[in-house]
Amino acid sequence: MKKYLKEHEWLIIEDQFSAEMHESSESIFSIGNGKMGMRANFEESYSGKSLQGTYIAGVYYPDKTRVGWWKNGYPEYFAKVLNAPNWMGLTIEFNSQVLDLNIGKVKSFERVLDMFNGTLSRKFIYIFPNGEEIKVDVLRFLSIKQDEIGAYQYKIEVLKGKGEIKITSFIDGDVKNKDSNYDEKFWDYLSHEINPSYTYLEQKTKKTEFKVAFAVFEEIKLNQLKIEWDFKNGIEKEKWAGKSYDFSFVEGDIIEITKTASLACSLYGSNLKSDAVNNLNNALKKGFNQLLTEHKDEWNQKWKYCDIRIEGDVPAQQGIRFNIFQLNCTYTGKDPRLNIGPKGFTGEKYGGSTYWDTEAYCLPFYLSTAEPKVSWQLLEYRYKQLDKAIENAQKLGFNNGAALYPMVTMNGEECHNEWEITFEEIHRNGAIAFAIYNHANYTGNDQWIYSGGLEVLTGIARFWAQRVNWSGDKKKYVILGVTGPNEYENNVNNNWYTNYIAAWCLNYALKCVQISQGDKEFYQNFQAKTQISESELDFWKMVADEMYYPESHELGVFLQQDSYLDKELLNADQLNPAERPINQHWSWDRILRSCFIKQADVLQGLYFFNDHFDIETIKRNFDFYEPKTVHESSLSPCVHVVLAAQLGYQEKAYELYLRTSRLDLDDYNKEVHEGLHITSMAGTWMAVVQGFGGMKVKNNMLQFKPSLPKNWTSFSFKIRFRDRLIEIITNKDSMKAYLLEGEALDIEIDHQLFQLDKEKPALFSLLQNA
Amino acid sequence: MKKYLKEHEWLIIEDQFSAEMHESSESIFSIGNGKMGMRANFEESYSGKSLQGTYIAGVYYPDKTRVGWWKNGYPEYFAKVLNAPNWMGLTIEFNSQVLDLNIGKVKSFERVLDMFNGTLSRKFIYIFPNGEEIKVDVLRFLSIKQDEIGAYQYKIEVLKGKGEIKITSFIDGDVKNKDSNYDEKFWDYLSHEINPSYTYLEQKTKKTEFKVAFAVFEEIKLNQLKIEWDFKNGIEKEKWAGKSYDFSFVEGDIIEITKTASLACSLYGSNLKSDAVNNLNNALKKGFNQLLTEHKDEWNQKWKYCDIRIEGDVPAQQGIRFNIFQLNCTYTGKDPRLNIGPKGFTGEKYGGSTYWDTEAYCLPFYLSTAEPKVSWQLLEYRYKQLDKAIENAQKLGFNNGAALYPMVTMNGEECHNEWEITFEEIHRNGAIAFAIYNHANYTGNDQWIYSGGLEVLTGIARFWAQRVNWSGDKKKYVILGVTGPNEYENNVNNNWYTNYIAAWCLNYALKCVQISQGDKEFYQNFQAKTQISESELDFWKMVADEMYYPESHELGVFLQQDSYLDKELLNADQLNPAERPINQHWSWDRILRSCFIKQADVLQGLYFFNDHFDIETIKRNFDFYEPKTVHESSLSPCVHVVLAAQLGYQEKAYELYLRTSRLDLDDYNKEVHEGLHITSMAGTWMAVVQGFGGMKVKNNMLQFKPSLPKNWTSFSFKIRFRDRLIEIITNKDSMKAYLLEGEALDIEIDHQLFQLDKEKPALFSLLQNA
Repeated sequence: MKKYLKEHEWLIIEDQFSAEMHESSESIFSIGNGKMGMRANFEESYSGKSLQGTYIAGVYYPDKTRVGWWKNGYPEYFAKVLNAPNWMGLTIEFNSQVLDLNIGKVKSFERVLDMFNGTLSRKFIYIFPNGEEIKVDVLRFLSIKQDEIGAYQYKIEVLKGKGEIKITSFIDGDVKNKDSNYDEKFWDYLSHEINPSYTYLEQKTKKTEFKVAFAVFEEIKLNQLKIEWDFKNGIEKEKWAGKSYDFSFVEGDIIEITKTASLACSLYGSNLKSDAVNNLNNALKKGFNQLLTEHKDEWNQKWKYCDIRIEGDVPAQQGIRFNIFQLNCTYTGKDPRLNIGPKGFTGEKYGGSTYWDTEAYCLPFYLSTAEPKVSWQLLEYRYKQLDKAIENAQKLGFNNGAALYPMVTMNGEECHNEWEITFEEIHRNGAIAFAIYNHANYTGNDQWIYSGGLEVLTGIARFWAQRVNWSGDKKKYVILGVTGPNEYENNVNNNWYTNYIAAWCLNYALKCVQISQGDKEFYQNFQAKTQISESELDFWKMVADEMYYPESHELGVFLQQDSYLDKELLNADQLNPAERPINQHWSWDRILRSCFIKQADVLQGLYFFNDHFDIETIKRNFDFYEPKTVHESSLSPCVHVVLAAQLGYQEKAYELYLRTSRLDLDDYNKEVHEGLHITSMAGTWMAVVQGFGGMKVKNNMLQFKPSLPKNWTSFSFKIRFRDRLIEIITNKDSMKAYLLEGEALDIEIDHQLFQLDKEKPALFSLLQNA
Repeated sequence: MKKYLKEHEWLIIEDQFSAEMHESSESIFSIGNGKMGMRANFEESYSGKSLQGTYIAGVYYPDKTRVGWWKNGYPEYFAKVLNAPNWMGLTIEFNSQVLDLNIGKVKSFERVLDMFNGTLSRKFIYIFPNGEEIKVDVLRFLSIKQDEIGAYQYKIEVLKGKGEIKITSFIDGDVKNKDSNYDEKFWDYLSHEINPSYTYLEQKTKKTEFKVAFAVFEEIKLNQLKIEWDFKNGIEKEKWAGKSYDFSFVEGDIIEITKTASLACSLYGSNLKSDAVNNLNNALKKGFNQLLTEHKDEWNQKWKYCDIRIEGDVPAQQGIRFNIFQLNCTYTGKDPRLNIGPKGFTGEKYGGSTYWDTEAYCLPFYLSTAEPKVSWQLLEYRYKQLDKAIENAQKLGFNNGAALYPMVTMNGEECHNEWEITFEEIHRNGAIAFAIYNHANYTGNDQWIYSGGLEVLTGIARFWAQRVNWSGDKKKYVILGVTGPNEYENNVNNNWYTNYIAAWCLNYALKCVQISQGDKEFYQNFQAKTQISESELDFWKMVADEMYYPESHELGVFLQQDSYLDKELLNADQLNPAERPINQHWSWDRILRSCFIKQADVLQGLYFFNDHFDIETIKRNFDFYEPKTVHESSLSPCVHVVLAAQLGYQEKAYELYLRTSRLDLDDYNKEVHEGLHITSMAGTWMAVVQGFGGMKVKNNMLQFKPSLPKNWTSFSFKIRFRDRLIEIITNKDSMKAYLLEGEALDIEIDHQLFQLDKEKPALFSLLQNA
């Protein structure tokens, strides 16, 4: 896509209107507050191409799946992130001409996402077909302080013309999902009310029966004077309720529309109407400006803890902030039933909310930047769904408490569509176990193991112990028919990453079981619940010890799968640039047979289990696989950045960093119109902190290894670590660590030990090592 | 399923009514005449479970596909064999009670398919809820002599009661496909007419715009007196036209309804109405009895040439005749645009009409039993679709005239739904080339090579030459990412069968090219058209010479695919019988990872290329693979029969023969309600002729090797061979060959040479060898 956005450290700016780019901008300028979110659809009518999208966290629809021929074990439904009623509805008519940027002339246009303050604004001058000219100025936000409230102020200045104006403000519940599998609509109408104090619309989803209601109120002023609503101007349509206002205008008039909305949802209470109306009234009492101030304050406060500053490179700075902003829009950790959807509140694609992305990519971000309860809740989410994971495994023929977590889920049930993914991309189970390890390793305590973690690990270990089979040919345990993280191969045998993480899971579960045996009461209960036996544990060990790992001794690399070396081995730079991304130009058949890697696969393993391998091994594998990786998954470049930084491949690290941090802003994969890549944004954070910062926790010690990209003057980030807040600032001369909160601790920078306390920052000179 | 059908040499008999088995019987009692066919739906109303089905050869609908996420190269549509307007429509009301076997009491019931005469009949005694009792006798046929005509005679004798009767006879065009992907209906109404001479309804299919019309006339007699139709009793509904007749009845009355229908279709002419009406009038002039006699004569004549007689084993006799009967119902070779759908005219499943079944299983039957033009047309069909096969390959990224024939097609375009089949089950290309070889080998002339065959072979060879890749690891050409004939594995590498047939195709194409170079004019044209070069031919040879074949030297068997020995190797007799067929009890995941084989795979290759291998090799592979084969494809047992017979495994051969010949009659795979397995029926013929008869053509010589199943007294069959008609009769003492038509020839029976002429049958004694 053409780079049409302006570079700025804190703002995303679009400075001219382009109908062609509009759907992309609708994604990029999305806002959210953890409970709800919306694409940057215009408030007023727009007849051009647009993907309408308002989303409410946790509200989904189990759409009928689309499969060619149904086979046993296929998922029952495909969950859809649901397009919810649009509370913004606004029709503006000047002398019966609808304000519609697709129809009249747009003389100037600016759209701005202010990431520091969490607001979306728009300014434009518009000429109606009959010549009336207006200047419009809109400011919108979804309150992150009071997350059921959204509001906008819509200011119109009449530059030319006179006559009659009609404003209609409404809630539109007659929305549908563009990705509905069978063109069905997913909402049923429940009730509505239109009165002078509010407009109310309540609906519920089919099948899942989530109830969602909005109460809205719009104050309309003409030159500071309030326009009263006439009772007869209530409008009711199917799944739609609104009010209209008619008055005259002349040149110079200023019309201000302030619309406030309050969400109520059956996830949070049963009395939707009183909830919605009470919250609306409270918000109206505060008024738009106070709501806005509270909202900005909360955002400013968030940035104090999670900002990453990059000096000397505005695109890189803008990129990382955009990622951090969107992550905070998507997930706040307030509600244990929620998770981090791959598109957050910015689009429909992918369905479901929870992928292995959460454990593999997002957990580190929340571990380091949020309060401890946030990452705890992410683990809790999976524990609550353990029974469903066991059921899921049973459907596929496993037993004895084996658990296979779904590839995609809303409530613990598998809801993806493709057998080669749901049945075969089983490495996801490993990521869930790894997250438990990661949490314990980072936080330094194993409390979670005793609070459900061990049961999860046991279910997962049991799955692997049943999923392997003994190969009479290889005289090892093998794992056949899997899809690794690289989804450009399907149904392969002995995916190195999967085999490695499977064996690791068995060993880690075993270790945790053994540790927990120290707590006799706990272990007795655990044993009673899981019926675990010594012979089962022995079998875990045997499988882990006798696992098969495909490897080329000649090349000195692990093999992505048994037959990888049978492929025609090319590098991505041999591809015709016009044919990239290959998933938009090549047949699926050609992709599957090619050597090209969608996302880190062997390298994902070397990232997770970095300390298990010497640097030469990592280097050989990186040198072999990186050139073959096309990074057509948003989750790919960040892992490569971390390894590239570790290996001292500065240019490669920087190139891939830009790709991950500006993936959506620069639309590398030509799909931003469908929504943003939310989960990969946490990977971008990882790229800076674990990549350029070289952060690790090893033997209970926080370690760093600085690597400053050439064109950066400096970068800095803060992390929470075991009741402390630490800031790391790296420039060309040094890496400095400051203890901002908490007790003194030892850290290492590039293997040099520092005793860090509040009075004494650690200073590691980069000059001496240069 | 319970065996509810009676055994009989020429008849299929159901002697009591079972609502539970009705859908299965609707399949089994299907009739057809090559141009149209129908399931054994009742003529009168039936409110129980039923799959309504009338089908017209070549009339299909390109239904929207169902896939999870669309990927490049996926087929555009899924062709559906179309349920066509039902011309039989009949409602019979006695004192306002509808005759419906699902409602009243069925006192006796018999349904008979007379395979010798090609008729379907039914007799039953029925008691209405109010006590009226009637005896019904129906006879139905689709004329194989005049294939646009269908008719039935429906005779009612009133055993008890009196009152008013209403008979409504109609054409119902408001039909739908049960397997419609999006519950859409596929027909649009065009016109209709109701007048004293006929009822007419014309419709067309959406998208494909096939027009189909039926003209029907029903003569109704009460005690031999014709009931006149009253003009006001025409009934018109959407896509429906009919007439009703009202009169009184008393005990002892005999009511006869004779309904005749005439089909017209835009495949055969543009003037549907006059075609339909003229043909109807001609048929009515002949009258029911003459139509029936002509029809029976034609069937009797067919049997003279294609019957297989088995003595001493009624179930086996009934099975083979049922197969031959259905094959003749499905395909008559009259129209080069038609082919042999896997369910013929008996159900909807599978969509499309043409699979590799045609070349691999059906061609031998038609080569040996039908006039030479029939098999020629089957080859011609693929030549006509060569351009589409080249386009299909281009969509997947191949070029330079490489052709990939579709897995399923109606018109040359791929119309299957699943990537693992359409992209990967590419061995089908090999079967198409093999059919060309098979035709030349059997007929002894290479005329077809010069009439399109060489172009087809070139397109196929080019595909293989591009589809392989050089494995740096194996130092051989490999074929990655395929699905072999055993669809219980997907996306495997180096499927032995595929690699073998690919190399064979390259060699055979090369040989044919070289032979054709003898005809300079032909070759110049061919070269100009295909731009074939010497270096391309050299490359074909290199690929064929350097092809990789997976093999276990330890076991002495070819490997189904690279990783087959990594699987847990079990035999089918270790399966829990309650879990069979596994495709109805196991998850797809479990099936894919298991060693169980759906249908002959390596063994398919040993069947096709039997003479390439010594008997010990065939034996070792059979002994290894047969026990792992679950035969859950109808196409599997027949191949195993041929090999088992060759290896002298009489019991196994007989067991599998029964399974293939009575697959539908005994419903081995528990799916007969969906329709019959038409293409596999040709495999049953193969099992007798090539299996127990041991027929082959080698070095231009017809060879036999008798193998009489233990409980058979004798079996005999006829074959057409190079302008001759030969009959082979085998009993416990001998195999005899009679030359019935044509010139003398040499044949071999168990390696003994006979000079066969009309005066001197060949007699091979089995006693001397015993």
